[in-house]
Amino acid sequence: MTTTSSVTVVGLGPMGTALAETLLRQGHSLTVWNRTPEKADALVAQGAHRAADITEALSTSEVTVLCLKDYDTIYRIFDTDALHGSVLINLNSGTPAEARAAAKWATEAGADYLDGAIMVPPFLVGHPESVFLYSGSRDVFDKHQATLTTLGDPRYLGTDTGLAVLYNTALLDLMYATMNGFLHAAALASSADVSAETFAELALGWFLPFVVTPSLVEQAPDLDKANYPGTYGTMEMNLNALDHITRTSVEQGIHADLPRLMKAFGEQATTEGYGANNYLAVFEIFKKRAKA
Amino acid sequence: MTTTSSVTVVGLGPMGTALAETLLRQGHSLTVWNRTPEKADALVAQGAHRAADITEALSTSEVTVLCLKDYDTIYRIFDTDALHGSVLINLNSGTPAEARAAAKWATEAGADYLDGAIMVPPFLVGHPESVFLYSGSRDVFDKHQATLTTLGDPRYLGTDTGLAVLYNTALLDLMYATMNGFLHAAALASSADVSAETFAELALGWFLPFVVTPSLVEQAPDLDKANYPGTYGTMEMNLNALDHITRTSVEQGIHADLPRLMKAFGEQATTEGYGANNYLAVFEIFKKRAKA
Ligand SMILES: NC(=O)c1ccc[n+]([C@@H]2O[C@H](COP(=O)([O-])OP(=O)(O)OC[C@H]3O[C@@H](n4cnc5c(N)ncnc54)[C@H](OP(=O)(O)O)[C@@H]3O)[C@@H](O)[C@H]2O)c1
Ligand SMILES: NC(=O)c1ccc[n+]([C@@H]2O[C@H](COP(=O)([O-])OP(=O)(O)OC[C@H]3O[C@@H](n4cnc5c(N)ncnc54)[C@H](OP(=O)(O)O)[C@@H]3O)[C@@H](O)[C@H]2O)c1
Repeated sequence: MTTTSSVTVVGLGPMGTALAETLLRQGHSLTVWNRTPEKADALVAQGAHRAADITEALSTSEVTVLCLKDYDTIYRIFDTDALHGSVLINLNSGTPAEARAAAKWATEAGADYLDGAIMVPPFLVGHPESVFLYSGSRDVFDKHQATLTTLGDPRYLGTDTGLAVLYNTALLDLMYATMNGFLHAAALASSADVSAETFAELALGWFLPFVVTPSLVEQAPDLDKANYPGTYGTMEMNLNALDHITRTSVEQGIHADLPRLMKAFGEQATTEGYGANNYLAVFEIFKKRAKA
Repeated sequence: MTTTSSVTVVGLGPMGTALAETLLRQGHSLTVWNRTPEKADALVAQGAHRAADITEALSTSEVTVLCLKDYDTIYRIFDTDALHGSVLINLNSGTPAEARAAAKWATEAGADYLDGAIMVPPFLVGHPESVFLYSGSRDVFDKHQATLTTLGDPRYLGTDTGLAVLYNTALLDLMYATMNGFLHAAALASSADVSAETFAELALGWFLPFVVTPSLVEQAPDLDKANYPGTYGTMEMNLNALDHITRTSVEQGIHADLPRLMKAFGEQATTEGYGANNYLAVFEIFKKRAKA
């Protein structure tokens, strides 16, 4: 295992280009291929080799990193016959079922396959704290860990190929929910002429890291035990608080659907028998498919 | 101004008791009053004085801190005639309109009035990083800042009396949204047998503090300028991502209303002309009252 193993990058969108530039900068022998070949020009000028076709792209390097729009694109690009003996590391976004299907497809064609997901924007590729998630073949992960470390902080999640994209989706889910929460809270603040910048200082600079996150970290193990003690606040107290947020939103003349929905989740939990528990019992509601 | 000014605490629920204990521990001369007098027993044993009635409670100390269930309770307890010349610092939760009404009521009765809100649970009262929000009379805040510092980190928000409770409500709004996001994301993870504790490590230990929060802090000033550049991702890309989260939730057999609503906010933003902007343009939707 060496930090300068040869790598091919297939797909030169903003993310694929960032991967390629980082590998090149760190001294890897780099081959690139993209449907629109001109997107490789700058990389070729920096020393990358442009493969004439996808078969050459696959055969030139010890490992091939895919960074395409989606899983369907993979099947459009590759000639299955050319896969035999190659090592694919796929960093597309997709669903767990798509990832598992791709692993099956690659393995049946005689290739080794590792699935992955990138948790940072292109400009953070190569930063030692930028997490890249991987799942599927432990063997591929171990063999190419040095190369993967060039791109960021590689985390192996398990042999289920679907885990990396599932984690990716779950993390984005958390991101959008937090973003919506901040936007709605900032809208409340703005209704009293408080700027989002001023509100962010307290909300993101203090409240989120010092109150919200530590309390969730502390309570996470309770979710796994379905243990939602109402000692410091029952569902009813939480529903009062959410009702208060909803009424204040209406009083201040802003949109109220977000607090209303959060209240509805708590009400459903009460209906299903979690009235004496704390708000985290909503986890039990989320784990079940909603009634259509 | 001295750190040992005399203080009365009115209201000895879990929070009022924590305030009283902290003041006592820090050497303040303390008087207490509660509807149910026995709740003061332990404090009296530690050296607090129990006022015989609310009039004595008000007249004994330089400042009176209220920590009651809600604003209505204040009007039930106080005889307006007894207020003249007293200094009230009210830490109840409520709406901005209720806070402004209480300030008017107190001022008309000849009392000085400062409104406030406590942003931590009772066991963190007295910690130097525990934020207490205040708004209204700057004069009361300045005169009693040393006493307020005994309770935590006092932040003066402005002369509009409604600001402290509004901030409080907005911060809780952010807390519930983040909590819901974490619970829903953990439900996705759990659908692949990943424990909430394991997921929390990456989600709360890395992703939230290193990716989500810094990007929101960076973009907060843009909200104030209604500047939502689509350079690194248009509303359409965000809608694709939210659709992906929704479809993955359905594929994994979990509840999908939360990602669906977040997608609906983005769709409404597109309808209202923000299709070429990034997701933060949802702020414009939130600032307006929803159509009923
Ligand atoms: N950008 C980010 O911030 C980010 C962050 C994390 C993860 N990701 C993931 O990384 C992957 C790549 O994203 P990206 O931002 O670089 O851009 P993208 O627009 O998602 O993908 C662009 C790449 O896909 C290729 N492609 C699309 N349709 C094709 C087709 N029919 N046949 C052949 N090639 C096709 C493009 O080739 P052409 O150049 O010829 O069009 C280009 O190489 C995606 O799965 C994305 O979810 C991106
Ligand atoms: N607990 C927290 O984690 C927390 C955090 C931040 C802010 N706060 C705020 O702090 C305030 C106090 O909260 P808390 O948790 O201590 O308990 P609470 O249950 O909200 O309030 C209890 C206090 O209100 C009094 N009270 C209720 N109804 C009354 C009535 N009709 N007449 C006279 N007194 C009445 C109770 O007296 P009795 O003892 O006689 O019933 C007791 O002193 C609330 O506004 C709350 O929102 C609490």
